Amino acid sequence: MVEKSWLDNPVKDVSNKFKILAKQRQNSLTKPPGSLGRMEDIAIQLSAMQFTDKPAVNNVHIAVFAADHGVAEENVSAFPQVVTLEMVKNFARGGAAISVLAKTLDAKLEVINAGTVNDHEEMLSVYNQRIAPGTQNFSKRPAMSQSQLLEALNVGSESVKRAINESADLFIGGDMGIANTTSATAIACALLNESAEKLTGPGTGLDKDGVSYKASVIQKSIELHKDNMKSPVGVLQSVGGFEIAALVGAYISCAQNSLPVLVDGFISSVAALMAIKIKPQVKQWMFFSHASAEPGHAMIMQVMDVKPLLDMNMRLGEASGAAIVVPLMRMACVLHNNMATFEQASVSNKDNM
Amino acid sequence: MVEKSWLDNPVKDVSNKFKILAKQRQNSLTKPPGSLGRMEDIAIQLSAMQFTDKPAVNNVHIAVFAADHGVAEENVSAFPQVVTLEMVKNFARGGAAISVLAKTLDAKLEVINAGTVNDHEEMLSVYNQRIAPGTQNFSKRPAMSQSQLLEALNVGSESVKRAINESADLFIGGDMGIANTTSATAIACALLNESAEKLTGPGTGLDKDGVSYKASVIQKSIELHKDNMKSPVGVLQSVGGFEIAALVGAYISCAQNSLPVLVDGFISSVAALMAIKIKPQVKQWMFFSHASAEPGHAMIMQVMDVKPLLDMNMRLGEASGAAIVVPLMRMACVLHNNMATFEQASVSNKDNM
Repeated sequence: MVEKSWLDNPVKDVSNKFKILAKQRQNSLTKPPGSLGRMEDIAIQLSAMQFTDKPAVNNVHIAVFAADHGVAEENVSAFPQVVTLEMVKNFARGGAAISVLAKTLDAKLEVINAGTVNDHEEMLSVYNQRIAPGTQNFSKRPAMSQSQLLEALNVGSESVKRAINESADLFIGGDMGIANTTSATAIACALLNESAEKLTGPGTGLDKDGVSYKASVIQKSIELHKDNMKSPVGVLQSVGGFEIAALVGAYISCAQNSLPVLVDGFISSVAALMAIKIKPQVKQWMFFSHASAEPGHAMIMQVMDVKPLLDMNMRLGEASGAAIVVPLMRMACVLHNNMATFEQASVSNKDNM
Repeated sequence: MVEKSWLDNPVKDVSNKFKILAKQRQNSLTKPPGSLGRMEDIAIQLSAMQFTDKPAVNNVHIAVFAADHGVAEENVSAFPQVVTLEMVKNFARGGAAISVLAKTLDAKLEVINAGTVNDHEEMLSVYNQRIAPGTQNFSKRPAMSQSQLLEALNVGSESVKRAINESADLFIGGDMGIANTTSATAIACALLNESAEKLTGPGTGLDKDGVSYKASVIQKSIELHKDNMKSPVGVLQSVGGFEIAALVGAYISCAQNSLPVLVDGFISSVAALMAIKIKPQVKQWMFFSHASAEPGHAMIMQVMDVKPLLDMNMRLGEASGAAIVVPLMRMACVLHNNMATFEQASVSNKDNM
């Protein structure tokens, strides 16, 4: 049933040849060299990932993974647990932020239920792949078994297979799961060897006391699972979530299949860090979309040595922060592909004054 | 010929009523309150400007004002002066960054020649309104006469009239003019009472010695015109440019006509600061698009107490930094208008745990 083998597949490097060609083209376009700033970087990076001199982001695949967290029973979220499934329905009916954005972007949106507490009727564009009715409460025992972890990684990988079948040129993963900033923060603490006090934030809107209590639950959990958290995979099994593990699986799978990834905010960045800890080459296939308002995010970006493209003070998750970056990537591509060169436009360059 | 009267027209305030309604709606949508960050602010601000509960940025008017600068003969730019007119032609033929972006955005792009050194044949979408063959070299004498200044302000105001006739819901101004960071920096020094050394940057790509020499030209010019720069308008006449004055006229005119403005980078922000110095209420009609890589820009933003939406390290001008913000504004609108409320989606809110 559970296939482990794909995890061992190699990750190909991006193309240095197309990176150099793209840089040369940027310097030939009618503008002072470098004056389009990070828009140039996007086009160059994408050319290298897509092995092309005409980068494009026409066909975007957005996969939102939803799951519940046993640790929610510790009152670590401002919202009740039923919201996870209620939001799955909202995604499917088109009322959520990511639904609205996906439609605007003409992007494919799929929702994967990787394990809400309650089951649900069949819904269009929702894949019902519930691994269990939520993870276990990791403040008392491991969040999931090893086989559940592999199943969750597979859920992510299967979504990437669908994306590839649809000829996607960009993969965006998103998350939904009440209490999942608690899980993500616990993972970040373990991977970065930082205290919960330093990394814990308000999530969906805890007050100061709520944040402080949430940090104490996380700290306690890290100590509880210390012996099992000596490997990244051990961390994920001990304090992770099904949707977070699915994101990890998806990111690794994208890199193995040369599909560029646009990483969303806090939860997704923790999954990205985890994927990179498991397979360091994964990083070269990633764009980082936005700086989350969740306080731990900045430190994760710093450790990964990346600067996200936008800072809109967003903290919603569900791939929304990544979605708003898609038009920037598209414009970076059309600028790269369609601007005139100095020669074509008979514009004098710096060098021929 | 030259009409001065429109400058005295009043500026209406944005709607506080629609601002409050928009805030209420944002808090009713299926997301933790505030979690869409600055995307919420955009929708709220635009609702207040457009006196509506359904803000929209469908119809964008982009006006790029081009003109030459006498001070270019002091060798303050990395590019030769002929580039101004060559770029006007490139705009018209669709090869420039802003041409490509305007097309992608389905925005109206008009180019206004407010005074290049050389004249040119008629070109589609270029308004030939040359006030003079460039400004005077302001390191030796005033950049323009008072009547030329009024003419330049009118050039901006006329562009806004066209935007309104086309039912534009957003106005973007852009600039093209070799040596215009020299003029804009001189204006900024005068308005902020700062030294040229502190504010001068590389523009299109000067090296360290070039920047240092440029700063000395600016400092000398500010001292030369000191007595005539006691009013904002006096500053504009002494060290301004036709395209910068046109932007000032356009911004004032937009505010008088309740047309929201999206301000581009360094040159445009100096024009915005000037417009606000002339009529402080103009500010409430403005969005600030991006943080320019030109070093003086951050200080101008700070003085105006605004935080631009993007920081993509761009420094091209010609409205390009503003153009890339348009999709973000559009997405802010569709999120505001089309997301489901907690009630509509039967999603549990924080308050009914």
